[in-house]
Amino acid sequence: MRVFSGIPLRDVKVTGGFWGAYQELVRNTVIPYQEKIMADEIPGAEKSHVFENFRIAAGESEGDFYGWVFQDSDLAKWLEAVSYTLSAHPDPALEKRADEIIALIGRAQEPDGYLDTYFTIHQNLEKFSNLREAHELYCAGHMMEAGVAYYEATGKDSLLRIVQKLADMLYDRFISQKTKGYPGHQEIELALVKLYRVTGEGKYLELSKRFIDERGKAPNYFDKESTDFIVWGKPNGDYRYNQAHVPVREQREAVGHAVRAVYMYSAMADLAAEAGDESLYEACLGLWDSITKRKLYITGAIGATVDGEAFSIDYDLPNDTVYGETCASIGLVFFARRMLEICPSGKFADVIELALYNSVISGMSLSGTNFFYCNPLEVTPGVSGSLYGYRHVLPERPPWYSCACCPPNTARLISSIGSYAWGAGGGTVYSNLFINGSVKVQNTEIFLDTNYPWDGEIRYTFTGERSEFCFAFRIPEWAEAAEISLNGEIVDLSANLRDGYCYIKRVWSANDCLVLAFGMPARRVYAHTSIRENVRKTAVMRGPLVYCAEGTDNGGELQNIILPRVAEIITGIYDKDLLGGIVPLQASCIRLLSGDALYSGVPPREEEATLTLIPYYAWGNRGLNQMRVWFGE
Amino acid sequence: MRVFSGIPLRDVKVTGGFWGAYQELVRNTVIPYQEKIMADEIPGAEKSHVFENFRIAAGESEGDFYGWVFQDSDLAKWLEAVSYTLSAHPDPALEKRADEIIALIGRAQEPDGYLDTYFTIHQNLEKFSNLREAHELYCAGHMMEAGVAYYEATGKDSLLRIVQKLADMLYDRFISQKTKGYPGHQEIELALVKLYRVTGEGKYLELSKRFIDERGKAPNYFDKESTDFIVWGKPNGDYRYNQAHVPVREQREAVGHAVRAVYMYSAMADLAAEAGDESLYEACLGLWDSITKRKLYITGAIGATVDGEAFSIDYDLPNDTVYGETCASIGLVFFARRMLEICPSGKFADVIELALYNSVISGMSLSGTNFFYCNPLEVTPGVSGSLYGYRHVLPERPPWYSCACCPPNTARLISSIGSYAWGAGGGTVYSNLFINGSVKVQNTEIFLDTNYPWDGEIRYTFTGERSEFCFAFRIPEWAEAAEISLNGEIVDLSANLRDGYCYIKRVWSANDCLVLAFGMPARRVYAHTSIRENVRKTAVMRGPLVYCAEGTDNGGELQNIILPRVAEIITGIYDKDLLGGIVPLQASCIRLLSGDALYSGVPPREEEATLTLIPYYAWGNRGLNQMRVWFGE
Repeated sequence: MRVFSGIPLRDVKVTGGFWGAYQELVRNTVIPYQEKIMADEIPGAEKSHVFENFRIAAGESEGDFYGWVFQDSDLAKWLEAVSYTLSAHPDPALEKRADEIIALIGRAQEPDGYLDTYFTIHQNLEKFSNLREAHELYCAGHMMEAGVAYYEATGKDSLLRIVQKLADMLYDRFISQKTKGYPGHQEIELALVKLYRVTGEGKYLELSKRFIDERGKAPNYFDKESTDFIVWGKPNGDYRYNQAHVPVREQREAVGHAVRAVYMYSAMADLAAEAGDESLYEACLGLWDSITKRKLYITGAIGATVDGEAFSIDYDLPNDTVYGETCASIGLVFFARRMLEICPSGKFADVIELALYNSVISGMSLSGTNFFYCNPLEVTPGVSGSLYGYRHVLPERPPWYSCACCPPNTARLISSIGSYAWGAGGGTVYSNLFINGSVKVQNTEIFLDTNYPWDGEIRYTFTGERSEFCFAFRIPEWAEAAEISLNGEIVDLSANLRDGYCYIKRVWSANDCLVLAFGMPARRVYAHTSIRENVRKTAVMRGPLVYCAEGTDNGGELQNIILPRVAEIITGIYDKDLLGGIVPLQASCIRLLSGDALYSGVPPREEEATLTLIPYYAWGNRGLNQMRVWFGE
Repeated sequence: MRVFSGIPLRDVKVTGGFWGAYQELVRNTVIPYQEKIMADEIPGAEKSHVFENFRIAAGESEGDFYGWVFQDSDLAKWLEAVSYTLSAHPDPALEKRADEIIALIGRAQEPDGYLDTYFTIHQNLEKFSNLREAHELYCAGHMMEAGVAYYEATGKDSLLRIVQKLADMLYDRFISQKTKGYPGHQEIELALVKLYRVTGEGKYLELSKRFIDERGKAPNYFDKESTDFIVWGKPNGDYRYNQAHVPVREQREAVGHAVRAVYMYSAMADLAAEAGDESLYEACLGLWDSITKRKLYITGAIGATVDGEAFSIDYDLPNDTVYGETCASIGLVFFARRMLEICPSGKFADVIELALYNSVISGMSLSGTNFFYCNPLEVTPGVSGSLYGYRHVLPERPPWYSCACCPPNTARLISSIGSYAWGAGGGTVYSNLFINGSVKVQNTEIFLDTNYPWDGEIRYTFTGERSEFCFAFRIPEWAEAAEISLNGEIVDLSANLRDGYCYIKRVWSANDCLVLAFGMPARRVYAHTSIRENVRKTAVMRGPLVYCAEGTDNGGELQNIILPRVAEIITGIYDKDLLGGIVPLQASCIRLLSGDALYSGVPPREEEATLTLIPYYAWGNRGLNQMRVWFGE
């Protein structure tokens, strides 16, 4: 069912430009920083204890387990990021370090393949007795993803063998022995598909399908689990939180814990693609619509409420109390990528890009050492992070979290972004994201050169042998007056445009040069009027970037800034010294000022002012500060 | 220090008009209904068990205590309402019932004067061991207020003797025996002043002053209380919740639990007045400003946050997640009344009236049998009362609450409103509120006749003997083009106006007729721009009434209704059949309608529509329904 698949990372280069800089940050700063975090070597940061947990489980150190039941997954995601980084940038020292860590993981694995330091250390606890809460299958899934990534990056099967042994044990338990159950936090389902794809072992696909198919069937498995071991609380019979309230094929509304949801939807799309499973695909399409038509922030954030880190009801998208977990946006990228591979439609690629450029990278400081868990669209110091109902919405990025799922998730996505940029299948090569670098495919190497997202000119240069294939490149939905030229000749775009992609089939020769150019004026965006908080407001975007105002540039009381509909939004000059290099925007605006009275018969007076906007992802890098995305218009 | 004091209720009549109808509702419906509630005779309502608790404490019934530690206070407040009702409307059957209940209370009192069924029934618990939480002094205070009220209404000292015995026991403990401590929930302080005023016993004033003076002193008493008996939780060292974080004289910001706060501020004003205590009065003035300049809703609601039922930070006044407890507005009326008696300034009387006509009576359905605890300014079914952060904001009034402080509090305030309307002192008679009826004072009887709040003509007719005194009547701050005439002759208002009151000193004769008339067009109100939620919005008031829109009259999606600044707000005709009789308002408005897209480059289209507004207090009487006070302008 898949029309195309991503290009293996070894065949993709990301060089320079916006994402090159991000990958460099991950390579040079984020990966070493997170390793130090897991070794508890960063003073003032939340304790991690991850390495020590593995040493204790391996019998090489004394002490107690520390952290959450899912603490192991931090290491797995970090190893995955390391793998992707090694794919493009061989680094013997880093690889040696990874090999040592993998060896430690191997020593922490139990003889039967079981791998989870929480349960290995807590020998009194019964394994697999609380699938709803205990995250064993979740951690297993992340370790499988790491094993696949490390194998693909280095050719070494050390971690792959570890996770296959683990997967074989799980297969034996849940398939051969017909033990009931499925994970409370989905993740292993998509990991098993990856494991199947790299090993060709159909049993892994079978196990993934089993977990998906059993989920939500009555009588509910979570009601039947009986254990004395409770992590947070006993089951209450409502499994919307876990997307286990009804069988997955019947689900059409995105509900519950947002990360669990999109991880599951990703696996559903994978399984639909592998098996041509139409009923699963129908569910995916319905869930996609539920998210993108009624439950998505303009930034690509999802999961509006702190109550269960979950999706709220339709159109309930508050800007100031939003949860918008970084991991949820990352999971949305996973889901969108899989939907795109089944059906190459711009609507999926646009959402990938929206989340990547906004709510994903807003999760990390420009320094690479501080991280957001929640990604608000409106922050007021003294309120955000402080008052009841706003305490989860931190106004500044801390150096780490006790629940540190987001930081290594961000690292693994950024370091693997090349595989999202390109795809190939059915004689067609796909360019989904405009990321500087190159791809080796179809006996050719295609180079992409651009200043995107700062301007809208994308230059593809073809090298290598003559090769006939169809080249499909994305035209963003918002692109203005897009034009294409091939070797200097204008090509009719509309004749070749289908569903957000332009398809050009020909024999490509060395030095063929295809240029896509579109206007990228700052544009206003209006929300559906059922989103209560955004009525009579506008947000500003340019290209894929959402813009925001910070107090640093605009003084305080941002709620009083009105952007009149007639005010032109002026695109500034790229400033390499500002916030790591950005194009700021400016507009004339009105600032409302009231007198001292709490209530008055006199409307606030209006003062002319200038509104300066910066890309949303870059907010919160200049100290404690007000921030706002939506402005009165 | 008091310039005037309220007129005893036996000398005031409330007849007909707006408040006459409310008092009739209290007399005929609310009092019998609440008696049935306390007898657990209303099916489907929360269990009360109040009468049974007293019977068990008296040894006349078997069983366990049921309810909160402050359950007794429901009966006390109900008896107070009964007393005020009997003052104006003798009712032998009701009085007999009250006598029986008072006798039961007497039998539940312990030999040493102790009176609190929670502790009398729970004999294992140590009395006065957890003043911070256990509400013994709070319940004592309410019983004292009832004792005073019943004595003043009927001349019977049965309940007065009970509460004096209780007060004497407390005096012995806290003054004679020098036992440390003060109540966690203030209330007894103001009650002791009432008890002092009616008995002339200085020791009650002394005890009140002791509680006020000791409060918040370091080391904090609540830190020192040691008990195994915990009601909700151990002390955490932060006593802002109880206004015991610093000595009361140092308090300038209204913080913590709003009801506790305003009950305490009321007692502070009482004590300042009794003793001419300037430092206490200074604190009262500062706290008054804190509330009215930075923490007051347009409706008179206070206590913005559910987190501790408390004041939030300055200007944090959300409309949809507001707490705005009915009791807090009632307590604000108490505080304002005392401030007014010290300094007859219109600013105090205006706030009394604002709260009375809006956030107090919004707490009760027009039927008198359903009650709000929280009084929101914006309600959306499916959100309010349902979603996290909104669960306290019920969109419809339930028949009772497990914590039922508000319903009997509303009853006692409405039934005593006559004493707020009038005052006398220093040879001046004060007319503070425009309430139909009459007052006997200065050997004369003054009749007040008006359709207020539906129009702005108030007619005072003087009867009885010729009498020289100054007559001071309030001119509301918002009154438009107020004019006065005496026996048909225009009198210069401005020459006689001082601080919101017009003073006319003369020998008043029978049939003197003074008419105050002012315009009362609907007017727009704008909030301070630091109130984030109300920026670019307007609310509509007419006279003392805040108006609101309901879905019933305006369709759904009220957030999309824009009231253009140029739109005239048209005052309707009084409709006696609508919501118990109201004057509705109408205006042309714009309704915004977007397409289906969640985000779009196209602004919502604008449709002309008509906005129908009803008085805020009357909302929620026509089924589940959207409601909103602030509109985009």
